[in-house]
This record gives sequence, C-alpha cells and structure tokens, in this order.
Amino acid sequence: MAAIGIIGRDGRMGQAIAAAVEEGEHTLAGAVDKGEDVAGLADRSDVLIDFSAPAALEGNLHAAIGAGVPLLIGTTGLGERHHSAIDDAARAVPILQTGNTSLGVTMLAKLVREAAQALGPDWDVEIVEMHHRKKVDAPSGTALLLGEAAAEARGIDLDTNSERGRDGVTGERGDGSIGFASLRGGTVTGDHSVILAGQNERIVLSHVAEDRALFARGALTGGAWLIGREPGRYTMENVLGL
Amino acid sequence: MAAIGIIGRDGRMGQAIAAAVEEGEHTLAGAVDKGEDVAGLADRSDVLIDFSAPAALEGNLHAAIGAGVPLLIGTTGLGERHHSAIDDAARAVPILQTGNTSLGVTMLAKLVREAAQALGPDWDVEIVEMHHRKKVDAPSGTALLLGEAAAEARGIDLDTNSERGRDGVTGERGDGSIGFASLRGGTVTGDHSVILAGQNERIVLSHVAEDRALFARGALTGGAWLIGREPGRYTMENVLGL
Amino acid sequence: MAAIGIIGRDGRMGQAIAAAVEEGEHTLAGAVDKGEDVAGLADRSDVLIDFSAPAALEGNLHAAIGAGVPLLIGTTGLGERHHSAIDDAARAVPILQTGNTSLGVTMLAKLVREAAQALGPDWDVEIVEMHHRKKVDAPSGTALLLGEAAAEARGIDLDTNSERGRDGVTGERGDGSIGFASLRGGTVTGDHSVILAGQNERIVLSHVAEDRALFARGALTGGAWLIGREPGRYTMENVLGL
Amino acid sequence: MAAIGIIGRDGRMGQAIAAAVEEGEHTLAGAVDKGEDVAGLADRSDVLIDFSAPAALEGNLHAAIGAGVPLLIGTTGLGERHHSAIDDAARAVPILQTGNTSLGVTMLAKLVREAAQALGPDWDVEIVEMHHRKKVDAPSGTALLLGEAAAEARGIDLDTNSERGRDGVTGERGDGSIGFASLRGGTVTGDHSVILAGQNERIVLSHVAEDRALFARGALTGGAWLIGREPGRYTMENVLGL
Repeated sequence: MAAIGIIGRDGRMGQAIAAAVEEGEHTLAGAVDKGEDVAGLADRSDVLIDFSAPAALEGNLHAAIGAGVPLLIGTTGLGERHHSAIDDAARAVPILQTGNTSLGVTMLAKLVREAAQALGPDWDVEIVEMHHRKKVDAPSGTALLLGEAAAEARGIDLDTNSERGRDGVTGERGDGSIGFASLRGGTVTGDHSVILAGQNERIVLSHVAEDRALFARGALTGGAWLIGREPGRYTMENVLGL
Repeated sequence: MAAIGIIGRDGRMGQAIAAAVEEGEHTLAGAVDKGEDVAGLADRSDVLIDFSAPAALEGNLHAAIGAGVPLLIGTTGLGERHHSAIDDAARAVPILQTGNTSLGVTMLAKLVREAAQALGPDWDVEIVEMHHRKKVDAPSGTALLLGEAAAEARGIDLDTNSERGRDGVTGERGDGSIGFASLRGGTVTGDHSVILAGQNERIVLSHVAEDRALFARGALTGGAWLIGREPGRYTMENVLGL
Repeated sequence: MAAIGIIGRDGRMGQAIAAAVEEGEHTLAGAVDKGEDVAGLADRSDVLIDFSAPAALEGNLHAAIGAGVPLLIGTTGLGERHHSAIDDAARAVPILQTGNTSLGVTMLAKLVREAAQALGPDWDVEIVEMHHRKKVDAPSGTALLLGEAAAEARGIDLDTNSERGRDGVTGERGDGSIGFASLRGGTVTGDHSVILAGQNERIVLSHVAEDRALFARGALTGGAWLIGREPGRYTMENVLGL
Repeated sequence: MAAIGIIGRDGRMGQAIAAAVEEGEHTLAGAVDKGEDVAGLADRSDVLIDFSAPAALEGNLHAAIGAGVPLLIGTTGLGERHHSAIDDAARAVPILQTGNTSLGVTMLAKLVREAAQALGPDWDVEIVEMHHRKKVDAPSGTALLLGEAAAEARGIDLDTNSERGRDGVTGERGDGSIGFASLRGGTVTGDHSVILAGQNERIVLSHVAEDRALFARGALTGGAWLIGREPGRYTMENVLGL
C-alpha cells in the first residue's frame, strides 16, 4: 500500500487517477493543481504522479528531488529542454516518463518490434486505429508509437517510410514502408491493430481500450512500481519486466 | 445444367469462369476472345458471360439478341453510351450488368443500406478495406459501392459527404459524413468492413474474400439465374431475391 | 421531453436508466421499488419503464392501464402466463416487452435474419460471443437471440440444429446447423459476431457493446417512442422502424 | 538455389511443396513415395523434406545420415520412439522437426509466450479458431500449440487448466485457465486469435492463413535454412532467428 501524490488534480487524468486510487489498494496522499504546494505534497507521498503541464515540470522535479520520492510523468508536450531536465533529475530519484500509461499498449509495442524484426521487410506493416468522433488529429499518438516500434526494429526512418492517408491513384505499395489509416466515429475509446502481411498469411496484433480508466490504472501501477527503485530513468516496459 | 458461353476467354475472369464451369454442374458451350465469332457462340449457349472490353459491348449485345440468349456483363469501364445500349438490348433479352459478381458483397451492400437507413445519421459510418500490395488505387471499387449504398439510404451525396485519407489535424468528424480508409499489404484478396458507430455501441458488417474464384463462381450463379427470365435489366440483388 | 417513471429503482438497470434520464432530454417522473406506489407513479408519468421482477408484473400492468400510460417491460424470466397477461393489457395501452433494449442488437438480429434467408443453407452460420470473466452461462442470451433469428429465417428449429461447445472429435460440421462458441475474460461488456461462411467468401455481422449504459439508453429511446402510440404490443424492431 | 528432395510425393503437402519449388528460386532434385529409393534421392539433394508417414521415418533418417544431407520432418503422428530416433540422427545431420511449418504461426506462438509471461495471470487467455466445415476435430492443433505456449510461459499444465467447449451453466471463469473455442464453416483455411483480456483493455494476437500454400512455402524456407547448419535438432523458431 503506497501513498500516492497527484500533480494536476483538476485535469481529466488527475481525476481519473484519484478515482483509481479509491478503487484500489493504495491511498491518496493528496492532490495539487497549478500554484499549489508540490513540495509539501512530495513530503507526504511515497510517489508523485504528474499529469500537469510542461511549464510545471521543473518545479515538480525539484520537489521530487527535495523529498527523495520517485516521480511518474505523464505530461504531454515535453520538449528537448524538458527531457534534459528529467535526465538530470533521474540521477537523484527514480523517474518514469511516458506518453502512454497503458500496460497493454506497452506490451503491444514490444510485440510489434519483435515481429517486425524477425519477419523482415517482406512482411508489409499496416497500422489502423479507430477513435471517437471528436478526436481532431490522425493518426493517433499510439498508432505513431507502434509505427515507430516497427521502424526501429527494421532500422528505417518512420517519417520517410510512411504511407498515410491513401486516397486516389496511389500506385503499388512501397517496399518496406509502413501504412497508417484512421477511423473516427461514435464513442470508441481507442482500438489499434498492427497488421503484418506476408505471402498467403497475416499476423494481426491488436489492442482494444474498453474504458479510459485503464490509463489511470496503468499510471498507478507504474507509480507504485517506482517506489524503492534505484535513481534512474525508467519506462513502462520496465514495469512489465520487458 | 446450362451451356455457358464465355466472351473474353483470355482475360483473368474469362479463365476463372472456365475453371469454375469445370468444377461445377454446368458445361462450357465455348469461349471466344477479340475478333472471334460471338454470334456462333451465342447460338450454342444457354447464356453468355461477358468479361471482355467496352469496345466489344455492342457486338456482344447484338449477338445475344440475335440468338435470343441472356447475357451477364461484368466488363468494367462502361460509359453512359454503353448503359444506354444495354437498356435497349434489355427490351429483347434478359441482361444482368454488374461491377461486382460476389454474392457476399451484393448481400453486404443490401445490409449496409438497411442499417444506415434504420439507425439514422447519429450512427457514424466508416468503411475500411484491405487489399494486396499491388493494388494501385484507393479506396477499392467495392468500398465505394458500399459507401454509395449507405449514402443512398440516407439521401445524401457521397462525393460531398466523404472523409477520405485522414491525415494530420483533421478537426472533429463531420456529422453524417462517410469515412474511408485503405490498407495495402501482402496477398490479401479483399476484406471490407462497414462500421456503424453509435453511442456506446457499434455494428460492424464485413465481407472477407478468401479467393478470387468467388467472383467467377458468382458470375456463373448469376448467369445461370438469367436463363428463362423475362427480357429486362437485372442486378445481382435480383439473383439473391432481395 | 417526456416524464419517465421507473419501476425497479434499486436494480442495476433501474439505476442506469435514472442516470440516462439525467444526461438526456427527458425528466424523471419518479422511481419506485418493491412494495411502493406504482399507481401513483403511473399517474404522473408519460411512460413507465419496468425492470423489476415477474411477480410484480400484474400490478404494473394494472397501474399502466389505470393511468392509461404506455409501458416498456425489460424484466427477464417471464413465463407463458406473463406473456398472456401482457397480451391482454396491450388491448388497453401500448406495451413494448423485450429481452434486449440495445438498438444495435435489434438491428443486428434483423440483418442476420435477412442474410440467413437470402444466402440460404449453403452458407454456414456460426455465432461467437465474448463477455467478462464473471458471466456464469454460455452462450449469452443475445447469442441465442441471434441464432433464433437465423433459424427462423431458414425455417428450422434452433434447439435441434445447434452445435454448441465443440470439443474433441466432432466429425464434419452438420449441414444447415448453427454453431455457437463462447469466450470469457477480463471486463468485456459484450461482443457478438455472426459469421455466414460460403464458398471462398464470408460475411461477418458484429455488435460491440462498449458500455452497459447503452441498454439504459435504448430502454429510454424505446419508452419515449411508445408515447402516443395506439394500444398494442410492440418490439424494439418497431422502434427502429423495421 | 538449393536442390530439394521431397519424401511423400503423392500426399497433399508433397504436391504443394513441389508446386512451391516450381514457383520459387529452388530446384526439384526429385520426389519419392512409399517403397521408392530414398537413399538415391538423398544423394542428389541438398536437403530432404519429409511429409510421409511415421513408419517411413527410420528409413528416411538413415538415408539423410548416409548422404550427409539435412532433413526437415513435417510428418505428423510421431511417438516417443520416433522423437528418440530423431535425436540420435541429429547428432549426425541437421534436422528440423515441426508440426507447423507456417512462419506466421511460429512467430505468433513466440509472441503469445512473451505476452502471457509479461502480463501475468490477471490477464485471461482465450483462444478462438475457425476452419472449414470439413474439419473433424476441435480445437485445431495450432490452437493447442498456442495454448501450450501460453501455459508454458505461466508455468502451468495446459490439460488441467483448459476450459473447452463452454456450454450451459459454466460458473465464473477459472482464474488462470486458458479457454478454447472452435468455429467451423465454409472454406476457411485457418484463422486463430489469442485474446489476453485484462482490466478495461485487451490484446488480441491473430494469424490468418489465406491459402494452404503457405505451409509448403514455410517448409521450403525451413529446408533451405537447414543447409550448411551444424548437426543438431532445430525448430521453426530457429529459422526466424528467435
């Protein structure tokens, strides 16, 4: 049982994590939002979970180091400067920074990497995702994360080897490229499929998100896992022991 | 048991239909290609199946009328002039012209039409298809046919209500629009899914083509069905009794 | 905007319908549970929605007739005697009794019926469903409802034409039979697929339930639809205009 | 370019491998069936591919050793005695014995093993497969192979931890058990899905066999890979470098 401190209390994820704490085995040490006392929260927490804003990052790292508590960072929109600050802080406390706290997506990315590497470029990689009708960008961040996993495994650059938004006379599929397609509609939380298509056979590796609560639950699992670790920078893959 | 006459013997479909005849209950009356004697073939056939070229259409209609035999036309690339000639010929003999001889796709289009109409515009329609890596255009003709079925059912124009090739910042999904996405890879014969996404529930209507032989078999079924019908213009939906 | 009266307030569905009323355009006239005043509730409601118990049915029908308000009955476990009482009451007020208030499932059953009939017995029908790990029976009621739709369309008896729980040496698939398979795991709300498998092609008709709230929302849609109808017995298909 | 020797020429797989050789980069050294000269074939082959019968195994091993050529064994129905003979022979020549020559299925089994291990027993494992209507047993051998991969990864015995053929009142799903379901219909070559169902999310790992030719092609890839290897016993996983 750990005491969880939430930074970014009023955001969607902050609230979802508080709800997940209530349902699970941990306790809530407290929760702060913009302008409130992070250092005080750090002092009474076993781990901090930060879904606030890039501008708050430096102060949050400082508070974590000051109290000697680990920090899970799920804030999006971080730049090079932020990552460099995280690297520095990770010399003092354990830090896990991630753009996706789903255990399932983390697992899937690992499987995609492995399959893309072992099967080789003769197997075409296609990624299709579906999200609710209100999502304003395509492909999803998770689809790109999965594409990056496949590209890395094959030693290619994703940007110059992507086929996105096929429409009209496209010509034959490019050898070794990675295709993306996006569906939008209804209230779909998020489905992703990575298809590896070979000669007369296909492998399809999929993730289905049933409810956004899974991201809060994954953040909690990752945060609890950080407690008692050596200082350093960790990923969700480490949480799964991959 | 019917005597089948094939026009367009050397094309991919002509050969596939000849193979399907061999495996089934019918017999091959004969098969002709460019410049050969269609009228003679018509005389000894119970039905003609034409997968040749638009330029040959007029002669083929003439031969069918001359011999008084029905004609199934699967030739693609027909223009207004051809359709008008078919309409004229259909006053003398039964004619079935279609862009897709699959019984399954014909069925699916009917179901899509019905679901799109009954569920109404609150259910977002998305269409995704996958074909082999050598296909050079997107979306597939069948995907467009399914989209047309949904658009007709809702009384909207497909061209001005399509979302194709989503990529980048797209904004929220348009109310009532129909989305298309295309996957390419490996040796996939052709998979199509029409998703109707409502509030907290989805209906997915799919067709899986396992082998191109199904198109030849469907043409044969359609051709045999034409024998003994009244003169007129028919569709694959009629073959299924829809 | 209608005034909704809920019978069976403390049950899972009663609570879900109250929540759905709050989120939507209607208002809550009131809600009763065992032993409370149904007649009084009927007097101030535009429609009654009953998810209580078979034992309460007679009183509920009486209250609806007394106040002249329509009644949607979602109570399960009804016997012949109950259906006979519903038939009687439906001479005085409009009544919709259903075992499944999902618009999507209702639609799907209609499509299954149509496809099973048009494609004929050469297309094998298989039904597979997945539900959460706590479900204690198999196949699901919805799977059986879909199987019944296919059986009716083909004029066969479902009980004597089912293949359930295949395991071991089963022999070849029975001609014209309908197969069922059940998956259990995690927190799946409910997925159903009806596969029609022909020669070299398949049609797959699926429903995905993302959240149980859809059943409450469907009950509300059905209830509101009943207001102002002629006395009679209705189904969810009527609500969809099928 | 290798010279391929086929043992079991007249069987379904023997013929398919001969066809695959014709389409590919290799040449056919020859093909024998029951009672014919295996030793002579071995002398003029770079590798032998054996899809004959258990009774022929000893002679085939003897021929491979005599000629010093590698041997791929796809014969099914082998017992302990046969495996022991293979182990002995593998001290002299490289031997790959397998029940499934699909590269995709081999890959999938590896991914299933990894996911089942990393995600742990809180994620329920379900396996569903579909095959053509003539298949007489259930679950398929490949489904059991995938279940075995999951069971091994979790250190449990598959036989005592399987839920097969769910039907009727089954009670809640057993913790840590592996579920199997089988669909039959039409002409489906073989589809397999392994579902790992967690809290509010699922991973689905699937294989689609489009055409049985893939098994012949995989046998050929495996056989060619054996040429020039050290003596020893290999698996299809080795071919993929797993």
